[in-house]
Amino acid sequence: MTGGGQISPPPRLLMGPGPINADPRVLRAMSAQLVGQFDPSMTAYMAETSALYQDVFRTANDATVLVDGTARAGVEAALVSILAPGDGVLVPSFGRFGHLLVEIAQRCGAEVTTLEVPWGEVVPLERIEAALAEVRPKLVAIVQGDTSTTMCQPLDGLGDLCHAHGALLYADVTASLGGNTFEMDAWGLDAASAGLQKCLGGPSGSAPITLSPAAVEAISARSSVEAGLLDGDEQRPVDERIRSNYLDLGMILDYWGPRRLNHHTEATSMLFAARECARLLVDEGIDAAVERHRVNGGAMAAGLVALGMETFGDQRHRMHNVVAVHIPDGVDGDAVRAELLERFGIEIGTSFGPLHGKVWRIGTMGYNARPDAVLTTLAALEQVLRRAGFAVGAGAGVDAAIEHYGTGATE
Amino acid sequence: MTGGGQISPPPRLLMGPGPINADPRVLRAMSAQLVGQFDPSMTAYMAETSALYQDVFRTANDATVLVDGTARAGVEAALVSILAPGDGVLVPSFGRFGHLLVEIAQRCGAEVTTLEVPWGEVVPLERIEAALAEVRPKLVAIVQGDTSTTMCQPLDGLGDLCHAHGALLYADVTASLGGNTFEMDAWGLDAASAGLQKCLGGPSGSAPITLSPAAVEAISARSSVEAGLLDGDEQRPVDERIRSNYLDLGMILDYWGPRRLNHHTEATSMLFAARECARLLVDEGIDAAVERHRVNGGAMAAGLVALGMETFGDQRHRMHNVVAVHIPDGVDGDAVRAELLERFGIEIGTSFGPLHGKVWRIGTMGYNARPDAVLTTLAALEQVLRRAGFAVGAGAGVDAAIEHYGTGATE
Repeated sequence: MTGGGQISPPPRLLMGPGPINADPRVLRAMSAQLVGQFDPSMTAYMAETSALYQDVFRTANDATVLVDGTARAGVEAALVSILAPGDGVLVPSFGRFGHLLVEIAQRCGAEVTTLEVPWGEVVPLERIEAALAEVRPKLVAIVQGDTSTTMCQPLDGLGDLCHAHGALLYADVTASLGGNTFEMDAWGLDAASAGLQKCLGGPSGSAPITLSPAAVEAISARSSVEAGLLDGDEQRPVDERIRSNYLDLGMILDYWGPRRLNHHTEATSMLFAARECARLLVDEGIDAAVERHRVNGGAMAAGLVALGMETFGDQRHRMHNVVAVHIPDGVDGDAVRAELLERFGIEIGTSFGPLHGKVWRIGTMGYNARPDAVLTTLAALEQVLRRAGFAVGAGAGVDAAIEHYGTGATE
Repeated sequence: MTGGGQISPPPRLLMGPGPINADPRVLRAMSAQLVGQFDPSMTAYMAETSALYQDVFRTANDATVLVDGTARAGVEAALVSILAPGDGVLVPSFGRFGHLLVEIAQRCGAEVTTLEVPWGEVVPLERIEAALAEVRPKLVAIVQGDTSTTMCQPLDGLGDLCHAHGALLYADVTASLGGNTFEMDAWGLDAASAGLQKCLGGPSGSAPITLSPAAVEAISARSSVEAGLLDGDEQRPVDERIRSNYLDLGMILDYWGPRRLNHHTEATSMLFAARECARLLVDEGIDAAVERHRVNGGAMAAGLVALGMETFGDQRHRMHNVVAVHIPDGVDGDAVRAELLERFGIEIGTSFGPLHGKVWRIGTMGYNARPDAVLTTLAALEQVLRRAGFAVGAGAGVDAAIEHYGTGATE
């Protein structure tokens, strides 16, 4: 017997940096039966999904679609479609997901310039401007919310700076979208991509992406139609084509757009999930969702501090949906996480790279950005910390969070 | 209002070349709540999924995992991970999905040699052998079942031929796996990838893939660990790295394997779907599933011929799960398809490239490889053809299919 029985995952409250529990509405949407790839109902669902994500990204971009893969597929689709080998890209980096942008851009054959700040800080716009003037890249690629450090990079004004220096601006908003203010058009972004498994309350596996007319133009200048698909082929010389077929946004736009040229077979169940994630946000209102993340994230942070822990990083720039706290001296961080998982069914996050073993990362996002999830986590963590020998005031975390809720909405 | 209401797709019987209706067990599996990425239950599900697909592919390869994307992502992952720029690849091609292998391999920077036969035929092994001797490629890449022509390429013996000439062998088995005999190890393949939306009875969006030790060795020789992930990085010079990060099978194996190095966030719901698809096949028995496809596909073909239509292509090499028939003279193929969809809720397929407007492609696969689905399709098609002015014998298609079922199992 190789396969195990019927699917039956244990009950978990996922309070790490993501993935988090999916909203039950999203799980139900995925259980809908399939329709054909070009069925009128399917193309209507695609159009609705595009329109919904225009609302979520706050953009008028028609070129708003899904990449069929995890958030990372959306990042790579943006970079490989925009950047030709030899193109310059500037990556202001403040954590692991900045490293990822560098890594992916390098594999695209781009000339990458990195502008790094210490983990726990964000990148000052003046420094980006100076680097823009010096490097004159085709693209600036930056993360909005980097869960590895919990920092949220200010982006307001960056679009204008980039355009003044002839650069396009891409942001990876996977971890921030829906829980932190993001304004695609008002901030002048040219490309942004996300995932479902953070503030959008869905499973990983679909990457919403949006492209400005300027980004579409840059991509169209490299796009090519697949052989065997049209009678009169429109094939570009091999060396000039986008280096990936699967992640070629030109082809993906031809599939989603009026030409409806066959590319991949749309991941229908994930499209149903992505559509429902966006419906949840649009029904709630994007501003209300961001405020909910701000209030619940603030309550979690207040509770953790009241339990005697110190936050990591510049708290003025903390993402609403995840907070990092130093693991107290003498406490075994992995043992606490294991006991929280095994006895209470609650997951909190470990860390990467320079922060590994030093901080826990605790999320309040998407479906789990709720007071009951925050208070349950704080109550359980208090018990586990006490049992680990760390002196905690009885009820201190929960009291502080409740206090925060009393004042949080009017901060 | 931009977004439409609750998901509620119309009822469809999907009898085209795929996607087809998902088995309800698969849809239910996807509605399970999520767990964390490294939760012990999650890593156990990943291990079970790997073992199940070893059964499905008929292989002992430990390197049997999922690529988080549609079938096309699995194809590109195999090619981009094995082929370095300048490497030679031989593509014996007999349809649109052979063109796709050429297209993807070209974008990987490989030197591609194509060996083409007319649509409706398969490629004789002698011709592949002659080309192997001449080209001496690093890889032979071939489709097993190409739905564009409905042909199923014989692969038995090809592994030995490739190895004798120092080449690895990859097959795209997306459309054939589970419905046609496939023997990864007995036939000596080094890599194969699939999708869920054909004979596996699931939705598009996950690509099972398996790699022989020789393929793993070729990939390991190019793999690199992401910056910011380990303290002591193991980074390869940029020019030597696999050109994609997302589709880098070395990194995906490090994520699925004992090192558990973070890469993408596994698409949990799609993993649950992929696991259930494999459980369905393993529960039924792979041989029994192939036989079910053979019998139901044969019944469909017999019924279509009895309705007065002529099959396309070399029927000795037809895939079990899809048949192409010439659209009768004077009949508007798209109008028939539209009436079948609108009045009966039944989808059959149109065609690509040289066959566009000339043949319909009718599938019997996965959950829909069932007598009731075959007979319902034939009954409805008879009505629509008659209304379109084509002379059909009353009951001829259904009678022939029922006759076939009486004899089919013992052919």
